[in-house]
Amino acid sequence: MEDWLKEDERMDYLLAEDLRIIQSPSVFSFSLDAVLLSKFVNVPFQKGKLVDLCTGNGVIPLFLSARTKGHITGVELQSRLYDMAERSVRYNKLEEQITIIQGDVRTISPQLGVEKYDVVTCNPPYFPAHEASEKNLKEHVAIARHEIHLKLDEMIYSASKLLKQGGKAAFVHRPGRLLDIVTAMRNNRLEPKRIRFVYPKEGKEANTLLIEGIKDGKSDLKILPPLYVYGEDGAYTPEVREMLYGDNE
Amino acid sequence: MEDWLKEDERMDYLLAEDLRIIQSPSVFSFSLDAVLLSKFVNVPFQKGKLVDLCTGNGVIPLFLSARTKGHITGVELQSRLYDMAERSVRYNKLEEQITIIQGDVRTISPQLGVEKYDVVTCNPPYFPAHEASEKNLKEHVAIARHEIHLKLDEMIYSASKLLKQGGKAAFVHRPGRLLDIVTAMRNNRLEPKRIRFVYPKEGKEANTLLIEGIKDGKSDLKILPPLYVYGEDGAYTPEVREMLYGDNE
Repeated sequence: MEDWLKEDERMDYLLAEDLRIIQSPSVFSFSLDAVLLSKFVNVPFQKGKLVDLCTGNGVIPLFLSARTKGHITGVELQSRLYDMAERSVRYNKLEEQITIIQGDVRTISPQLGVEKYDVVTCNPPYFPAHEASEKNLKEHVAIARHEIHLKLDEMIYSASKLLKQGGKAAFVHRPGRLLDIVTAMRNNRLEPKRIRFVYPKEGKEANTLLIEGIKDGKSDLKILPPLYVYGEDGAYTPEVREMLYGDNE
Repeated sequence: MEDWLKEDERMDYLLAEDLRIIQSPSVFSFSLDAVLLSKFVNVPFQKGKLVDLCTGNGVIPLFLSARTKGHITGVELQSRLYDMAERSVRYNKLEEQITIIQGDVRTISPQLGVEKYDVVTCNPPYFPAHEASEKNLKEHVAIARHEIHLKLDEMIYSASKLLKQGGKAAFVHRPGRLLDIVTAMRNNRLEPKRIRFVYPKEGKEANTLLIEGIKDGKSDLKILPPLYVYGEDGAYTPEVREMLYGDNE
């Protein structure tokens, strides 16, 4: 293992897919949100071109590789995360199916190809940038969590640019940004079609939003059944356990 | 009873509130949606001015009368429904608290008073008008169910006109219109603050949307826990039974 890991990195299992991923507690570890998005988005099974923006350590491309034979590109701005993602792809021998690119989501579409993609996913930075200055966060975490380098509107603009007509864009975000997201999607020809709210447990407000839209799709929004993360016993629900560990015991 | 009822009308119980309401199977019977909206909206208890647009047979004002000491105005366009609502109010001896007005929601705000209300509710016509022509519905039902006389945008415009700054508007509608509703609300200074999706049962898509906004409120949307109407046994869930019958057995 030693050649694959740097500094405080560790090799974690993605048990559900029998894959492994390089993580670092000080730099970046993937969140449940990324897993939920990987499972939520509709993907073509046999072929297609998929791209994951703000890919971080590449968790979404890795999860998607188990759901499609299509080619997946991951885009990450930060060199340290790009490097982790790229090593994870090679470790899993998925270089043929997954390409990790270091680049800026705002300007990446001419390089990747305008209107060339069937699916775009993104688990973007979550907090408005002005909140970041009040917090003393490590730089990698701050960039990943806050809209410092990438505003929501810019991300959605780029996602739409990359998509073919009829292609699908799927995002995960906070429910408080629902209105901003749907407004930005419609402004960029992405018609929202499926929303699923994620609740930490029964009786609580939703804390996560999964949304998928179709480029130039017609208006027909469905609100899917709620997803609960934890049961009354404080353990993951069977649905989430299945996503994370691939079992349903 | 005979003096109170016309033609095929009957006097039904609103069990949860110990009130009675005049209904007619051929003209109008209130729906569960109206009950859900009456229970969802935040109302001031001690005083205030409330108005229910598209009040039909007055079910929402009747339900609200059990939650507030404020004055409630119901607005209904159709004379037959206005007449039913007005008789129900008198039958329940609620003339002091509830006023039913026959009028057009689109033009009612100067008459009722611009920026005079604390709460506006509306369970509006549900289907776009162009769908009505394909259906051979009775006229009263067609007007109540379709956007023949009142478009969603017009209703939301009037609701906002009636509200004071900081006043609350609450609507019930189909989830497929979520984006139209939130767009119209924001265009009319009503900031969406609380959304609750109603699911017929677990595992199904939502079929009803409850939404509340505040006039000139700040952006801070919450997605409340889901509401299920029926349990696995096909009977109302305890939460809905409590709303309808006032018990929780």
